[in-house]
Amino acid sequence: MSSQGQNTGRRPELRHDPVANRWVIFSPARAKRPSDFKSKSPENSNPGDNSSCPFCIGNEHECAPEIFRVPSDPNWKLRVIENLYPALSRNIEGPCEEKEDMGVPARAIGGFGFHDVVIENPVHSVHLCDMEARDIGQVLLAYKKRIQQIASVESIKYVQVFKNHGASAGASMSHSHSQLLALPIIPSAVSARFEGMNEYFKKTGKCSLCEVQAKELLIDESTHFISIVPFAATYPFEMWIIPRAHSSHFHEFDCDKMVELGGLLKLMLRKMSLQLNNPPFNFMIQTSPLQIVPQLSGAGGFEMGSGCYINPVFPEDAAKVLREVNLP
Amino acid sequence: MSSQGQNTGRRPELRHDPVANRWVIFSPARAKRPSDFKSKSPENSNPGDNSSCPFCIGNEHECAPEIFRVPSDPNWKLRVIENLYPALSRNIEGPCEEKEDMGVPARAIGGFGFHDVVIENPVHSVHLCDMEARDIGQVLLAYKKRIQQIASVESIKYVQVFKNHGASAGASMSHSHSQLLALPIIPSAVSARFEGMNEYFKKTGKCSLCEVQAKELLIDESTHFISIVPFAATYPFEMWIIPRAHSSHFHEFDCDKMVELGGLLKLMLRKMSLQLNNPPFNFMIQTSPLQIVPQLSGAGGFEMGSGCYINPVFPEDAAKVLREVNLP
Ligand SMILES: Nc1ncnc2c1ncn2[C@@H]1O[C@H](COP(=O)(O)OP(=O)(O)O[C@H]2O[C@H](CO)[C@@H](O)[C@H](O)[C@H]2O)[C@@H](O)[C@H]1O
Ligand SMILES: Nc1ncnc2c1ncn2[C@@H]1O[C@H](COP(=O)(O)OP(=O)(O)O[C@H]2O[C@H](CO)[C@@H](O)[C@H](O)[C@H]2O)[C@@H](O)[C@H]1O
Repeated sequence: MSSQGQNTGRRPELRHDPVANRWVIFSPARAKRPSDFKSKSPENSNPGDNSSCPFCIGNEHECAPEIFRVPSDPNWKLRVIENLYPALSRNIEGPCEEKEDMGVPARAIGGFGFHDVVIENPVHSVHLCDMEARDIGQVLLAYKKRIQQIASVESIKYVQVFKNHGASAGASMSHSHSQLLALPIIPSAVSARFEGMNEYFKKTGKCSLCEVQAKELLIDESTHFISIVPFAATYPFEMWIIPRAHSSHFHEFDCDKMVELGGLLKLMLRKMSLQLNNPPFNFMIQTSPLQIVPQLSGAGGFEMGSGCYINPVFPEDAAKVLREVNLP
Repeated sequence: MSSQGQNTGRRPELRHDPVANRWVIFSPARAKRPSDFKSKSPENSNPGDNSSCPFCIGNEHECAPEIFRVPSDPNWKLRVIENLYPALSRNIEGPCEEKEDMGVPARAIGGFGFHDVVIENPVHSVHLCDMEARDIGQVLLAYKKRIQQIASVESIKYVQVFKNHGASAGASMSHSHSQLLALPIIPSAVSARFEGMNEYFKKTGKCSLCEVQAKELLIDESTHFISIVPFAATYPFEMWIIPRAHSSHFHEFDCDKMVELGGLLKLMLRKMSLQLNNPPFNFMIQTSPLQIVPQLSGAGGFEMGSGCYINPVFPEDAAKVLREVNLP
């Protein structure tokens, strides 16, 4: 990474992320440590072929049931289907509410929920960043539509939209897709985020999301959105796309805004791919920031034990590099 | 689709971990999902050789400065040294305390701290689980001694002891070692753990750690310790070693207890290695549970986004398997 012009003369620093309410360690020296393990082989990002992939057009019968497609004819551009190996089941009956006992959460509840797959494109070799902004906007609108459908189910408390690209980002399928997982509980990290932002607002009168938008952290901007590397980024080259309008929610964006967001997402994915050599990555929609995380270095026991992360790249350095990428 | 052998025998379930105060999704069906990525090559767990490894006996001059060795003569059995690429620096001057501004934590503080490496054995090919219980006890006592030394530094608020074994568990060095990282802050996950346990006690009058010790979760036991798979284990085949005595702290155990703990740790590592085919793993000391986590499946965007984990193996099934492993 030193070839990427990183300043290693820099001293380590701890930065507090007011959104997640946690500390991150920034330590450029860590980027230089040697390894006596063989380096990982490059991502084989699309090994399968049309004939064997259930997500390809023509193989719809190999998939779990469809929820909807766009457009609704045989020549679809995207499909939302049930996950064939769902983490949570839509077919569980009985009491699914989180029951409290003496003020303590129940020890176990039934695994009711929805787990869907969004097939982003009919063609196996086409990735999200290859698609037109308009078509990426259609994918975002599909998330929105599905969130709205699920929101009407009373016992669902939270929907996580996420994408895994590449095996080391967790993906088991190479055909371009993303997922929605709707839960009967609010994960504690999510409620901590809300509480952290509330607390910050109460104490300072400011929004912690708006606060992070310093000039040296900016990557790009469009009419209604900006993209930044957050001040206390947990992961190297982590990027956030944030709406300019204070406290807007993802599922409230209209069609035009979604196409605009699709355009900025495409730009970030292309910059990341070019600058970081097509890394495996994840993105997550944290209504509203859209968080993009390239998988550059795995975590170890320290992160697992303490929940605290070590990031070898200072956010302003990452932002500068990404701001200055020249796309062909 | 049922032809793909989906496990319908067991329904998914969400379980609440009162220690970390978070929900985990248990979903046996997930274990069956296919992957069209080539499987990862098996762990080459000890590729280097004596001549090139700085941690091997005879190569002490290639290491960062030594803190202490046991015994203190040229024929050492273990060494505690400074990390040559420290995440935090012991040489940072100036104010290192977490400053609060209007009740909000400071946005950034200097990266003061200690980052040490414990070389567990002089010989490159010897892993922790190959060592005698007595010698593993010496490693645990070295952690204790170093924690006690560091505890006297006023601005240090938390020390995380951890071990990475194998490249996919994060290790960059293959010679058997572990690390201590001493921080000028208390990570929010750690304070959440303390608060969660306190709250549980206030509300129920019970200790959440003692509560998790059900019979079907037991793996093994010794005079002062037991090993279990926790009821809401975050990771498949995760194991905890817990002292029987309520609320004892790791750094308070005497020499005999450490040797006993070393014996139980050795047993768990051997069972894990035999049953799970020598997987990469991490262990972390969460004063007091000692947490062991084999790296069997990476996380994806869902876990990163929500902080909620999906575990395909029910803890009582994992405990049964581990209880019944026959060691040669
Ligand atoms: N014919 C078919 N019809 C319908 N659905 C099909 C199907 N064949 C496969 N699927 C589903 O398609 C999904 C593909 O998802 P990804 O490749 O993004 O990662 P996966 O969910 O496997 O796990 C990653 O993401 C999760 C969540 O972050 C992590 O728990 C995990 O460790 C990580 O590997 C799988 O969930 C699979 O069940
Ligand atoms: N000659 C020498 N003298 C002294 N020390 C030397 C040395 N040569 C190397 N070292 C140090 O030895 C340590 C070996 O540690 P590990 O193999 O357990 O993983 P590492 O800390 O690299 O990163 C893993 O663990 C951390 C913490 O969990 C994660 O942040 C990271 O992503 C993951 O890869 C390194 O920290 C390195 O700096």
